[in-house]
Amino acid sequence: MNSLDAIFSPASVAVIGASTAPGKVGHDIFANILKGGYKGTIYPVNPNAKSVLSVKTFAAVKDIPDQIDLSIIVVPPKVAVEAAKDSIAKGVRGIVIVSAGFREVGKEGLEIENRIIGMCREAGVRVVGPNCLGVINPLPNVSLNASFSARMPACGNISFISQSGALCTAVLDFAADRDFGFSKFISIGNKADVDELDLLRYFHEDPETAVIVMYVEELRKGIEFIDAVKEITSGSRPTPVLVIKSGRTSAGARAAASHTGALAGSEAVYEAIFRQAGI
Amino acid sequence: MNSLDAIFSPASVAVIGASTAPGKVGHDIFANILKGGYKGTIYPVNPNAKSVLSVKTFAAVKDIPDQIDLSIIVVPPKVAVEAAKDSIAKGVRGIVIVSAGFREVGKEGLEIENRIIGMCREAGVRVVGPNCLGVINPLPNVSLNASFSARMPACGNISFISQSGALCTAVLDFAADRDFGFSKFISIGNKADVDELDLLRYFHEDPETAVIVMYVEELRKGIEFIDAVKEITSGSRPTPVLVIKSGRTSAGARAAASHTGALAGSEAVYEAIFRQAGI
Repeated sequence: MNSLDAIFSPASVAVIGASTAPGKVGHDIFANILKGGYKGTIYPVNPNAKSVLSVKTFAAVKDIPDQIDLSIIVVPPKVAVEAAKDSIAKGVRGIVIVSAGFREVGKEGLEIENRIIGMCREAGVRVVGPNCLGVINPLPNVSLNASFSARMPACGNISFISQSGALCTAVLDFAADRDFGFSKFISIGNKADVDELDLLRYFHEDPETAVIVMYVEELRKGIEFIDAVKEITSGSRPTPVLVIKSGRTSAGARAAASHTGALAGSEAVYEAIFRQAGI
Repeated sequence: MNSLDAIFSPASVAVIGASTAPGKVGHDIFANILKGGYKGTIYPVNPNAKSVLSVKTFAAVKDIPDQIDLSIIVVPPKVAVEAAKDSIAKGVRGIVIVSAGFREVGKEGLEIENRIIGMCREAGVRVVGPNCLGVINPLPNVSLNASFSARMPACGNISFISQSGALCTAVLDFAADRDFGFSKFISIGNKADVDELDLLRYFHEDPETAVIVMYVEELRKGIEFIDAVKEITSGSRPTPVLVIKSGRTSAGARAAASHTGALAGSEAVYEAIFRQAGI
């Protein structure tokens, strides 16, 4: 099983930091999975409540008596370290860290982020985020809306990668108004581990994906990116890749920096990269 | 704790026969509890599915590692015997049997019904049904819609007792259109154990109930009923009781007999009972 399968098509999901308070991210993500008709099993983790939305909670992920494929972490950075450690010990194969307060807020946040990613790399567990909107897979046999967007998009053949949570919401609204459907939908936030390139490769192999659209604030892998994406866009079985690039103006670049700690880079460089990659 | 509290205000509910197939009673009741915002914890029991509506199932009620207050049984009569036995062993304090196929279908059904009620009486466990729509408590701190009506009524001060599931649905629709709210709502079906009299006494003591309305096909306790209800309707703290009586025509009587195995009785007798009871 490809390690990203656990992120997009898990058979079981733990939400660490599931909350009983509507409006809190830990509540809304749990509610969206539950109400989105997820075909697997969902486990709320919260040591201070007996149940969340009528579903029995567990004090810690290690207390869950069943196999967990994916942990969704919605607790603050310092607690997230423990949550990631517990998840690895539990044997999860993927982690999505929705919480903010990492690289994008400064040195201390970056250190915590690096600590978590180091642990996960060692254990072979892939991580999405931190500081992201989550993951959505509208395919009927999965039907996972692990995001804080209440809207489950229609099923289709577009896979969407976004570095921004806010843009995700806008795109979901836009798509719903125009009857576009998605195969996979992911917000990668700080992309401390899983990045565009991992996802482009994964979606290129995905039989449910015909087109890939991505929103990019910065790319951290220039040359590797060009070579890999060229293969995807012009190989024997090409998948069209479309990019929305922000930070083309200096105001946009400043917004991106404060947002996910990204350096937007100069417009000309990105134009060249995209052209060479066949995007 | 009054034994009917476990039926109206349970802290935890097992749905025995929870199904993954929308449209099936075992699915819809589970869905209605989950979507009705139940404040306690709900456990689907189904040996053939890993989860129902994303919630982990248990193969049998005895496998649930937590205290269960109320079992809702939605499996066929022969399996219901085992489900009731398991529930008693688990220590539940109330059982609602929604399934049909008991007294109302003949001798064999009646025998199964009697067997279950015998076991439950011995264990001190109260039973609602069989052959009923279920129980609803719209109060915000409970918010239990353990019925196969998708509509959760508004919260109010009317308690409603019905021998008929179909009438319940009609009353819920009627009430929603007119902004009536309910304190408790119960369909008693074959009333093999819990009957009108138990409920009139319970609702009379209930601070949330100002008026009791009931739909009656037959009464099995004539004299006892009159004396008890007189206390309720004209004692020191009277609660108004209103009755809708069916089977006043011979066609209505035939319908009631096929419905819950009830003998509607003569109109004059019921008129006299209700008048003496202050209904």
